[in-house]
Amino acid sequence: MKPTITAFERSPDRGRGLARDMRVRWALEEAGQPYEVRLVSFSAMKEPAHLARHPFGQIPTYEEGDLTLFESGAIVFHIAQTRAGLLPDDANARARAISWMFAAVNTVEPPLVERSMAMVFERDKPWYEQRQPMLDARASKTLGLLSGRLGDAEWLDGAFSAADLMMVGVLFRSKPTGNLEEYPNLSAYVARAEARPAFKRAFDAQLAVFTDQPSTG
Amino acid sequence: MKPTITAFERSPDRGRGLARDMRVRWALEEAGQPYEVRLVSFSAMKEPAHLARHPFGQIPTYEEGDLTLFESGAIVFHIAQTRAGLLPDDANARARAISWMFAAVNTVEPPLVERSMAMVFERDKPWYEQRQPMLDARASKTLGLLSGRLGDAEWLDGAFSAADLMMVGVLFRSKPTGNLEEYPNLSAYVARAEARPAFKRAFDAQLAVFTDQPSTG
Repeated sequence: MKPTITAFERSPDRGRGLARDMRVRWALEEAGQPYEVRLVSFSAMKEPAHLARHPFGQIPTYEEGDLTLFESGAIVFHIAQTRAGLLPDDANARARAISWMFAAVNTVEPPLVERSMAMVFERDKPWYEQRQPMLDARASKTLGLLSGRLGDAEWLDGAFSAADLMMVGVLFRSKPTGNLEEYPNLSAYVARAEARPAFKRAFDAQLAVFTDQPSTG
Repeated sequence: MKPTITAFERSPDRGRGLARDMRVRWALEEAGQPYEVRLVSFSAMKEPAHLARHPFGQIPTYEEGDLTLFESGAIVFHIAQTRAGLLPDDANARARAISWMFAAVNTVEPPLVERSMAMVFERDKPWYEQRQPMLDARASKTLGLLSGRLGDAEWLDGAFSAADLMMVGVLFRSKPTGNLEEYPNLSAYVARAEARPAFKRAFDAQLAVFTDQPSTG
């Protein structure tokens, strides 16, 4: 039986792949696991049926038999745990990869999201211009440390793994508003990931949700 | 061999247990695993020796033989994976607990940290009073959804697990600046966790770092 994931019915980013279902689609593609997609509207996301799947009324979710999961990091981890190819077999290397998965969502993503949220929701506020350098500095500090650790390595810790998938998922999401171009090795790291066939299949699948929609304008 | 964790040499919160080593200490106490602590100064955290342990120059880290981990969520997960009592044996229940662990650090913690960071670093800014209601609203929305899901249950999903440890770790951290008292079931949830003997041992151990320091003032 194929797992079912949820994604936005109407792409808020016009199919640029910035929503968190992208990470889950990519993991499923890396694992060679076909899947179904249930599209949900913004209003349906706040209704009891969806809140039963996702306590915080967001996407993505993951359903497989009688198992329902939420949070992109947890879903990618579950896919990696139950299919081959996304986590190393060696126990220590596996534990280190999980450190990077948590670092992606808990250390790297928050300053990048805070910065891009301010760009969207506070651009017209009187304090926007004054606050933005502080948010830039926070994002750059985190990206600078990540850049320093990655150095000229291809992936974070040995072969490509769910660690890179989550980290690139976070960096890719901040590309349109981010400071990524300040760090050539991080830009190259994201480009290497984007060149993976599984990434491309996942990207095309999420784009099709947008391009298949009838024009309303 | 006992694992070694790192913690702040000088407690920035005067031993209130708000730093992220609290979660790791608590998990080790729940698992009955003795441990060593290496205290690090703020300057040492930015030096190569510590950056080799933690790419982002933070605490806690976890060292055991030739394994080095960082990120409180990943360390708690590693402790739960390798010791009994912190994750359910049933595979589906275990995957759901991991969803909650990621939700704690990726969905619940960011709006709480953003709000408390603004209270510390932007209190003297001209925009502080105007921005704070927006940050309050974001934090309350997340806490409200969490409160709705918890209902009158004792723990998030069946018996106490690493899911509750991480979620309470996040809620406990925001107690001094948070909106927790608006949600009596969340306050009671945190109080239930604080009453656990393992929590108390962990709390006392981190407090001792502060109280054992010679007064400098």
